[in-house]
Amino acid sequence: MSLVAPVTVHKILGETLSEAPDLLAVEEPLEIRLGFGPATSREQRSVSVTMRTPGHDEELAMGFLFTEGIIQRRTDVVSCRHCVQDADKEGNVLRVELHPDVVVDWARLERNTFTSSSCGLCGKATIEAVMALTPGPLSSNFSVEAAVLHALPDRVRQIQQAFAYTGGIHAAALFDADGKLLLVREDIGRHNALDKLIGAAFWQNWLPLDQFGIFLSGRIGVELVQKSWLAGVPMLAAVGAPSSLAVQMAKEAQMTMAGFVRNNRFNLYSEPKRVGINQLV
Amino acid sequence: MSLVAPVTVHKILGETLSEAPDLLAVEEPLEIRLGFGPATSREQRSVSVTMRTPGHDEELAMGFLFTEGIIQRRTDVVSCRHCVQDADKEGNVLRVELHPDVVVDWARLERNTFTSSSCGLCGKATIEAVMALTPGPLSSNFSVEAAVLHALPDRVRQIQQAFAYTGGIHAAALFDADGKLLLVREDIGRHNALDKLIGAAFWQNWLPLDQFGIFLSGRIGVELVQKSWLAGVPMLAAVGAPSSLAVQMAKEAQMTMAGFVRNNRFNLYSEPKRVGINQLV
Repeated sequence: MSLVAPVTVHKILGETLSEAPDLLAVEEPLEIRLGFGPATSREQRSVSVTMRTPGHDEELAMGFLFTEGIIQRRTDVVSCRHCVQDADKEGNVLRVELHPDVVVDWARLERNTFTSSSCGLCGKATIEAVMALTPGPLSSNFSVEAAVLHALPDRVRQIQQAFAYTGGIHAAALFDADGKLLLVREDIGRHNALDKLIGAAFWQNWLPLDQFGIFLSGRIGVELVQKSWLAGVPMLAAVGAPSSLAVQMAKEAQMTMAGFVRNNRFNLYSEPKRVGINQLV
Repeated sequence: MSLVAPVTVHKILGETLSEAPDLLAVEEPLEIRLGFGPATSREQRSVSVTMRTPGHDEELAMGFLFTEGIIQRRTDVVSCRHCVQDADKEGNVLRVELHPDVVVDWARLERNTFTSSSCGLCGKATIEAVMALTPGPLSSNFSVEAAVLHALPDRVRQIQQAFAYTGGIHAAALFDADGKLLLVREDIGRHNALDKLIGAAFWQNWLPLDQFGIFLSGRIGVELVQKSWLAGVPMLAAVGAPSSLAVQMAKEAQMTMAGFVRNNRFNLYSEPKRVGINQLV
């Protein structure tokens, strides 16, 4: 299991060609299967195939199942392990055993659909379904100084293992009011990196994350806001730009959203009260 | 319909705060519904909800349906228009009428699943399904000079309308052997930008695109290779990094793949023969 894979490339600089070894971000499919139902009649069902960077697969599955509303607490999960039946799928099929009492809302989960969006709302067959999973407004008193946000990109970059080598991996990081990083997860998919982070926190019984912020290395789409909201996160900060719908949902959630966090600058799109500015007068 | 939406943000530079107007990339859900079956018993079915930037919705639907193998030729589509029944969904539901003779493989399309990946292979309920839609190797004699690739980022940037304003929009561009740009499409989702491009070409009867290359403003995941392969494109060039699986599929497709195309450099990961280097000896 590795985040990166070696490759030989032709490097072209102007009109000069050279062969050189290089590293690629690993992308492989992960199939998540649920084992469910009473002990006397266990059933299995595949609920997702996601293209992900291998590693922290169990956390990815936990984060995915939690942010899709399938599991609510640790005890909902009996076990979570890789299947090894199929040799060529080894490591790419994860089976999650749900507690027999967990009732899966298949009607909600069942979609006759798939989609080409680069978003976490894929496969939701109606527009209503997109907005279905949203809790109430976040009332957390969490706050940080501006300097904490300014420092985040460098801190995460230092920890992020794979990006420096491949230039193609996203990170999600959990930080506290002092800017201390508690968790960093990486994946080729932005949503997977966030699922891994939330899944790790879920597994450690840290939810709701109402005294933490999440930092993302990329842009902020609405589904990243939705996942963070479900995890109770009152602050989302990102190197990239938010979308219009992401800002709209952050306002609805009363979540603080910071975008373009880089080069000692950032923009606040919602709930600026959670960021302290020691403005010189 | 606009690619960008105005917003007022708090801009923080160091410890200085100011309020300023800004623009966000618009993200809204698009639901694609199919009308199908014989004239005597038409049915309707929702096949996708994708988060997209409004605009070129019909092309997005065409590109999506083509790259998912649902439609093969223009005559498969009788009409394609926005539904206006629901006031609050106005512009976000597109109904595509298929020719009565088009047989939709619902069994393949039907997935009991949705997923959080930032990929176009979402919702495919088994790993086999991910790799199902791949044609034979590309044998095109298309080739370009290195200088053509070097010039692409600036050319596309000049045309790309929304990125300069929002910093958050992806572009896909169709170029010929001389580097001339024939089509540029933008979207908040990489896969949507490519679907719009392929859909536009599909609608103009340009497929297969065996004498063109496609340039992408972001990274290259495997599903972007898959879509391009289905459209017959022998060359994919991108500003960002490819994934391991993207390179693997490009090799299988005998497609030329160039990554990190910027600052007078790029890397070739497959089929370098289609790029001419006037190397000084």
